[in-house]
Amino acid sequence: MRHAGPVVLGLDVGGSSVKHLLAPALASMDAPPTPLARGRHSTPKAAPVEGLSAIVDSLRGDADLERVVLSIPGLVDEAEGVVVRSTNIPSLDGRPLGAQLSAALGVPVDVINDGHAAAVAEASWGAGAGIDDVFVLALGTGIAGAHVAHGRVVPGAHGSAGELGHITIEPDGHVCSCGRRGCLETIIGAPALRRAWAEAGGAGGPEKLLAASSAGDAAAKAIVERASSALAEAILTLCALVDPGCIVIGGGLAQAPHELVTLAARYVGARASFHRVPPIVPATLGEWAGVNGTVLTALRRQHALV
Amino acid sequence: MRHAGPVVLGLDVGGSSVKHLLAPALASMDAPPTPLARGRHSTPKAAPVEGLSAIVDSLRGDADLERVVLSIPGLVDEAEGVVVRSTNIPSLDGRPLGAQLSAALGVPVDVINDGHAAAVAEASWGAGAGIDDVFVLALGTGIAGAHVAHGRVVPGAHGSAGELGHITIEPDGHVCSCGRRGCLETIIGAPALRRAWAEAGGAGGPEKLLAASSAGDAAAKAIVERASSALAEAILTLCALVDPGCIVIGGGLAQAPHELVTLAARYVGARASFHRVPPIVPATLGEWAGVNGTVLTALRRQHALV
Repeated sequence: MRHAGPVVLGLDVGGSSVKHLLAPALASMDAPPTPLARGRHSTPKAAPVEGLSAIVDSLRGDADLERVVLSIPGLVDEAEGVVVRSTNIPSLDGRPLGAQLSAALGVPVDVINDGHAAAVAEASWGAGAGIDDVFVLALGTGIAGAHVAHGRVVPGAHGSAGELGHITIEPDGHVCSCGRRGCLETIIGAPALRRAWAEAGGAGGPEKLLAASSAGDAAAKAIVERASSALAEAILTLCALVDPGCIVIGGGLAQAPHELVTLAARYVGARASFHRVPPIVPATLGEWAGVNGTVLTALRRQHALV
Repeated sequence: MRHAGPVVLGLDVGGSSVKHLLAPALASMDAPPTPLARGRHSTPKAAPVEGLSAIVDSLRGDADLERVVLSIPGLVDEAEGVVVRSTNIPSLDGRPLGAQLSAALGVPVDVINDGHAAAVAEASWGAGAGIDDVFVLALGTGIAGAHVAHGRVVPGAHGSAGELGHITIEPDGHVCSCGRRGCLETIIGAPALRRAWAEAGGAGGPEKLLAASSAGDAAAKAIVERASSALAEAILTLCALVDPGCIVIGGGLAQAPHELVTLAARYVGARASFHRVPPIVPATLGEWAGVNGTVLTALRRQHALV
């Protein structure tokens, strides 16, 4: 620790690991701050408050820690710092995590949703930097989205806006995890791609499917084209309802080769009518987007206090 | 004119008529002000600046007019007061209407979109009053929508968010005015209902169809059920993407009998999965919503100056 002034700590608490990023408390918010420390720990699932407190204590050393912001996978009451429901870390359900950690650590602790954290970072410091209205989409096992306007997530009345994965694409399609039929997730989610690839005789997961498609395998190409077409339809709905100025696509399924995303972007362009189609670009912060979003949130709160 | 203090004037400029509402410039914004004057004129289509100036001059009399806000059917650059495109009043296309009227009248003139004006009024003074996140939907020949968060329209990057009428409901459905297939408008727009009713042997327009359905006519009921089902699907998409705290439905097709809307609300409740379904309620301001929105906008700008 070579930094003499006050610091803030961001923690991205995932189902299996916790990433951290320590930064000067008054760093500029124009670009990601040079981290004073950055790393990864196992998620303390059984006793999360004690475990997370121990992680913070090990990181703060004798630094002047002014604020901690955590992101959590699940529904969060951000105003109250309460985890409403977390599928991946059930021991957090209903817990006033912000207040409990704040009492243990003696500094303000804010709790935010992990998808919101990643979206704010991509919109402000990543692929959407400089654009006022950004929709950030993460393609993986599930599909998460968030509309970031002027740097802030537009959360909706219950904090659950942005569920692009549950737009109906095929009214008579497969049953979705949500109970309805033909949601985007039933076509483009990682399990759906894995199943389609296995049915076509392919081996391995979605990464193998994407590699085979890039290599020219006809069956793989057909699956990717169907997925890209479904994503394009969902994006056209998004343009009609939300009208973003930029669409940033990240998550495991948007990694290089970006074929699935570039093909979807081409379909959107070809099928648009009145829609104002914005740039559709890959995310740039990768797996560090979430923890960058917690640090950005911490910096905003510190700057607001000065 | 019995009011001695300063006044503001709101004008709702439609394709055939202009509605006006004159109110005290510092009226409370908690509820619609008691109008000092309220009425209707023919729309001056050929020479809109001269015609609208004449209307304003006839209304202001010797009052201390401080501000005029107009709403226009079409795409408006609200920051600049420029009408980008107006299908119903083509003579306004590309015109810096705010600046031209302001020069003619000697007072500040703001120009806003008519759907936004009506939505802000319904959200703040009508059926959505007291709720932070309101989506206002107008069902008529076309279908217009706007998300109003904390009293302000969330416009999107190009001012064209809220186009619920162009959500795809039937991928292989009828061709829409927008050029795509199976949009909500191709099922529930007034021309679509008129066509379906004529094909079923019915006489008259959508009003007759709704009345026949209410009276128990089986063919009419089937058409209304299909329309309500399509509207329900669009509302579920809206809940997934925008997560409003209230959905207000107005426009000609939502008039009493409200069967189409109440049936759609029932379908939404029955089909929702993870969705947070908000109250779905009829609009309360009727055809005066738009002009109330212009007055509310004028009052906000006046209060911001004090």
